[in-house]
Amino acid sequence: MSTSQLGIVKRNIARADRAVVERLSAFGAATVHEAIGRTGLMKPYLRPIYAGGQVCGPAVTVLLHPGDNWMLHVVAEQIQPGDVVVAAITADCTDGYFGDLLATSFQARGAMGLIIDGGVRDVKDLTAMKFPVWSKAISAKGTIKATVGSVNVPVVCAGALVNPGDVIVADDDGVVVVPAAGALQAAEAAALRESNEAEKRRKLAAGVLGLDMYNMRGPLEKAGLKYID
Amino acid sequence: MSTSQLGIVKRNIARADRAVVERLSAFGAATVHEAIGRTGLMKPYLRPIYAGGQVCGPAVTVLLHPGDNWMLHVVAEQIQPGDVVVAAITADCTDGYFGDLLATSFQARGAMGLIIDGGVRDVKDLTAMKFPVWSKAISAKGTIKATVGSVNVPVVCAGALVNPGDVIVADDDGVVVVPAAGALQAAEAAALRESNEAEKRRKLAAGVLGLDMYNMRGPLEKAGLKYID
Amino acid sequence: MSTSQLGIVKRNIARADRAVVERLSAFGAATVHEAIGRTGLMKPYLRPIYAGGQVCGPAVTVLLHPGDNWMLHVVAEQIQPGDVVVAAITADCTDGYFGDLLATSFQARGAMGLIIDGGVRDVKDLTAMKFPVWSKAISAKGTIKATVGSVNVPVVCAGALVNPGDVIVADDDGVVVVPAAGALQAAEAAALRESNEAEKRRKLAAGVLGLDMYNMRGPLEKAGLKYID
Amino acid sequence: MSTSQLGIVKRNIARADRAVVERLSAFGAATVHEAIGRTGLMKPYLRPIYAGGQVCGPAVTVLLHPGDNWMLHVVAEQIQPGDVVVAAITADCTDGYFGDLLATSFQARGAMGLIIDGGVRDVKDLTAMKFPVWSKAISAKGTIKATVGSVNVPVVCAGALVNPGDVIVADDDGVVVVPAAGALQAAEAAALRESNEAEKRRKLAAGVLGLDMYNMRGPLEKAGLKYID
Amino acid sequence: MSTSQLGIVKRNIARADRAVVERLSAFGAATVHEAIGRTGLMKPYLRPIYAGGQVCGPAVTVLLHPGDNWMLHVVAEQIQPGDVVVAAITADCTDGYFGDLLATSFQARGAMGLIIDGGVRDVKDLTAMKFPVWSKAISAKGTIKATVGSVNVPVVCAGALVNPGDVIVADDDGVVVVPAAGALQAAEAAALRESNEAEKRRKLAAGVLGLDMYNMRGPLEKAGLKYID
Amino acid sequence: MSTSQLGIVKRNIARADRAVVERLSAFGAATVHEAIGRTGLMKPYLRPIYAGGQVCGPAVTVLLHPGDNWMLHVVAEQIQPGDVVVAAITADCTDGYFGDLLATSFQARGAMGLIIDGGVRDVKDLTAMKFPVWSKAISAKGTIKATVGSVNVPVVCAGALVNPGDVIVADDDGVVVVPAAGALQAAEAAALRESNEAEKRRKLAAGVLGLDMYNMRGPLEKAGLKYID
Repeated sequence: MSTSQLGIVKRNIARADRAVVERLSAFGAATVHEAIGRTGLMKPYLRPIYAGGQVCGPAVTVLLHPGDNWMLHVVAEQIQPGDVVVAAITADCTDGYFGDLLATSFQARGAMGLIIDGGVRDVKDLTAMKFPVWSKAISAKGTIKATVGSVNVPVVCAGALVNPGDVIVADDDGVVVVPAAGALQAAEAAALRESNEAEKRRKLAAGVLGLDMYNMRGPLEKAGLKYID
Repeated sequence: MSTSQLGIVKRNIARADRAVVERLSAFGAATVHEAIGRTGLMKPYLRPIYAGGQVCGPAVTVLLHPGDNWMLHVVAEQIQPGDVVVAAITADCTDGYFGDLLATSFQARGAMGLIIDGGVRDVKDLTAMKFPVWSKAISAKGTIKATVGSVNVPVVCAGALVNPGDVIVADDDGVVVVPAAGALQAAEAAALRESNEAEKRRKLAAGVLGLDMYNMRGPLEKAGLKYID
Repeated sequence: MSTSQLGIVKRNIARADRAVVERLSAFGAATVHEAIGRTGLMKPYLRPIYAGGQVCGPAVTVLLHPGDNWMLHVVAEQIQPGDVVVAAITADCTDGYFGDLLATSFQARGAMGLIIDGGVRDVKDLTAMKFPVWSKAISAKGTIKATVGSVNVPVVCAGALVNPGDVIVADDDGVVVVPAAGALQAAEAAALRESNEAEKRRKLAAGVLGLDMYNMRGPLEKAGLKYID
Repeated sequence: MSTSQLGIVKRNIARADRAVVERLSAFGAATVHEAIGRTGLMKPYLRPIYAGGQVCGPAVTVLLHPGDNWMLHVVAEQIQPGDVVVAAITADCTDGYFGDLLATSFQARGAMGLIIDGGVRDVKDLTAMKFPVWSKAISAKGTIKATVGSVNVPVVCAGALVNPGDVIVADDDGVVVVPAAGALQAAEAAALRESNEAEKRRKLAAGVLGLDMYNMRGPLEKAGLKYID
Repeated sequence: MSTSQLGIVKRNIARADRAVVERLSAFGAATVHEAIGRTGLMKPYLRPIYAGGQVCGPAVTVLLHPGDNWMLHVVAEQIQPGDVVVAAITADCTDGYFGDLLATSFQARGAMGLIIDGGVRDVKDLTAMKFPVWSKAISAKGTIKATVGSVNVPVVCAGALVNPGDVIVADDDGVVVVPAAGALQAAEAAALRESNEAEKRRKLAAGVLGLDMYNMRGPLEKAGLKYID
Repeated sequence: MSTSQLGIVKRNIARADRAVVERLSAFGAATVHEAIGRTGLMKPYLRPIYAGGQVCGPAVTVLLHPGDNWMLHVVAEQIQPGDVVVAAITADCTDGYFGDLLATSFQARGAMGLIIDGGVRDVKDLTAMKFPVWSKAISAKGTIKATVGSVNVPVVCAGALVNPGDVIVADDDGVVVVPAAGALQAAEAAALRESNEAEKRRKLAAGVLGLDMYNMRGPLEKAGLKYID
């Protein structure tokens, strides 16, 4: 993490346009990742705590210290309905920063889910509450409240830069960050991509080979591929 | 692992009081971990082989060698109904030490589950049998029976010291060791903690912020937190 | 990976006998692994994308480059009904090489499943399609089509050597490779082993100890095991 | 990585002031990391290829694809004497992106060293050339030249955001990123810290305890610390 | 870690006998590990910060929290000449807990070295000071001083149980814990082992095979080994 | 590992031609890896126990069980001067399989070095003896002698297939396997490559850019690269 604004809570952030977020929410993480030129993907060690969860919403960000979840209470106040909380940590830590009490609070504030580059606990309760979390670990280990971090500053979470207000798209395939300014373009590119895919899927299901559908035989031969018996 | 009693089976161990274990069984691993001062947690790389399993019972311990599960047959005889078997290994190993046959035997002896700092196999069968296991790996690789270890000696399992008779509390959040002598105090502290949580949960669900419920605004300001627009 | 035949597609391979594959399909990966002398097991970091999937079929192999899935289109044409595709990569890579479009194509060609020493995506779709995959990672990250690899050459996948036509047996316990020439013997050994297990399971469920059933008490004493109170 | 400017080479970047970089070069990574409020540290999995290397200079950044080092040739042209090249990759990859030929070119252009979130090779030559590299892996595996990335865009490297022109301070303790705008303040804070440390070191060497030098006994007692015999 | 005595400093501990420690110091970690029945070995992820360091001395133990090195100042006061400090952490953490200032203090108190299940920094200085450290990571990241832990309680460090006063033997091969009560026996067993090794080494250097020297040919044949041409 | 010949020692193997091995020994692992089409590289987690070691010689292979080094004594007898021992293990294991006694024996037999997909110990002695080892771990943990494996069967070591007699080329960049039949061609390709490199190195040192030397500007522009100010 390389932002230097520790001890700051930014109250007003420019969230991606609500209608655009709505459009983006129709697409999965892999499609959106392609639509924005294969950028903004968090590392695959982040995994959902249960299968089938899906979120799409503007990021409110929070920067935490190892073993210290104090700022999760601070960020709760900044949540607006539809937001996704993105929590980065200044060093690797697998402690359980978040459990059913904080989830109750986040859900009451309208949060859609949590992305955290650390651990969570009470996962059976979170699953029952249908509060999706993508985390690095599951751990019963609690945290202290001793050091201030920041809220709504740019953070690096699981290898991806997140600016507050960016759109987070997460599902079983992982977590993608769409810059707020590029969200509309992303939604359009995703829609285009998806419409193409339906036709391709139909052909492939009918037995057409990708080799033919994509005209790959020539390029493969040119690249030196040889068939032998 | 640093015990030096290899080749020993201790038959009589002081199990935590049955009534106390019963009381502790009402609580999850995270609550119990808090209740005993955040100690005794095994490392989060131990994961349940299926979601939703939960055990609470006295530990019978076994110390195994890499790739050798001979002592699992020895420990089977020492199991009493309600026990949880805790298996440590003298070096890192992901082999599948335990499968459906041993599980059948353990279950017949009354074991509640297995905690193993190694691998297991036949996980589909174990799931169907509802025999919960927390392990480091799943592997079809079998083991040999060549070297003796020990049963009911103190062991270090996944980073936590376990004395035979200690109470093991495990669920989806992980595995916690409660020293037998502290089990009653742990149950009381857990009950107190849980009763407090119900009220907190109600408030948070109603939209009260942790910031206010826990009176954090003053300390945060004192620690230098600044709000900007 | 140490084969040196890059840029080759072998069209005719000697698949294990269909009837033998049928017999082998009755057994799980752990049983088969035992039946062939504990060899041929892929590393346990390969995990199924959903629980309960099971495949048994001849391997068609493909060697890919990091971040490049071009050859998955080439291998599709070589799939015959009942085959299992085994994809090795020339270096460690977690990219999502395979998603719902390729799965549609593979399924249309009759493939039973995919074993890949890399990442996959669209796992929700793959689960809905009941197309089982054993992979090293799940990642939304796509791949390019720039460099040729090979199809139906010997490959090393997750630590195991796979020759085209070998039988792949995979379930929740992992992935095992059975050399085509040894498949019949493997099926017979597995059947023998399984028949023995039923009787053992019955005894163990009735409370008989492995110590007695396997006559271990003498050897344990001879190895120096001591019981104390 | 979440920048979206693929296929771009930015020629003019605002490098941190040369005199300030000179001042910063007097301090190690740990001191500078403290001086900027414990931010900007790359993950500790980045290790120097030989002990004792040290660099301080403005970053020229490059974004690479897995298994593809084409853009390292592009970034070479943008190097000015004293620069440190920072190479991020769009997905995890341990391939050897960089060896003695590229090092010869980088050194001829005046580069001080390389920070790369991937692998390098020819490390014996690089050591003999005294060209320091901090990398994630050492691997003889070469890379292709097929896909364009970008040069001098913001990148996330080993968990830290790097803007072109930021100052990179690296030694045996790791790699720290100092935002160009904060470099002067960082140098001053580092100097202050270091001057304090000399006096502290003298006292500690004379046997004074940190407990007394930092007046910790009161706070420790207040925090509940108890001494027993 | 499963001790429950947080917030305690034990001043009087029973250190292993000085003369016995002196005798043990003649042997390396591998020899001592064998001499005590292959127990007490810390996990191999602990590595020395420089090659060639070697320590043998009684353990003073300290239990730290993630990201918090406050107790390292507390433990400094409990060090007696010849001691080795063993630092465990209540959760995984790679932060740099220890640097040249603390090393100056520890060295002034007579400490021989540090074993820490976390990170250290200023490794170039520590190397110059000849203060050997075995650690899990090297990281420029500093720590806070907010939460009390304990000193001279039993701790689990890198998978091994350490009681205060136990003898720590560490070199390039790793770190071994010898229970204080078993130190004399360990020294004698190590001496016996070493005297045997000199003779074996001479024979092996002369070309005698271990097969013959250890009379393995019979057992190998009995175990089924077959020679083919 | 997927060979099924357990319990076999093959005495006569076809070693790569001595003169060819001599020619290959002039080149490093990275050059040879390129020369054979980027195949045969072991995974980069294998690291030399000391910097600067280099071996080139025919492989004698051995397949070991986890925690069991019995077969290292068996393989010793099969070593001929100039050979490199390659040790694979049937499951992941970090135990110290090899130390100064076995090294003395191997060296007496003429072995050049050891490649092992496990751990070694006595590394200070091995370094002093100048016996190079590439291993996965360093560990003081010893092994037992209970189960037979095989010698001079094909093995998979650190992800690469090794047939007995193949040439092993290892240095600080890693370990490469050259099939015996391809060794001459590899030596010629390596020589060609190296001769080209000298000229390239000279140009690059003189400040010529790879962009120009390799005529990359056109292809980069065609691939969409744009320069901005």
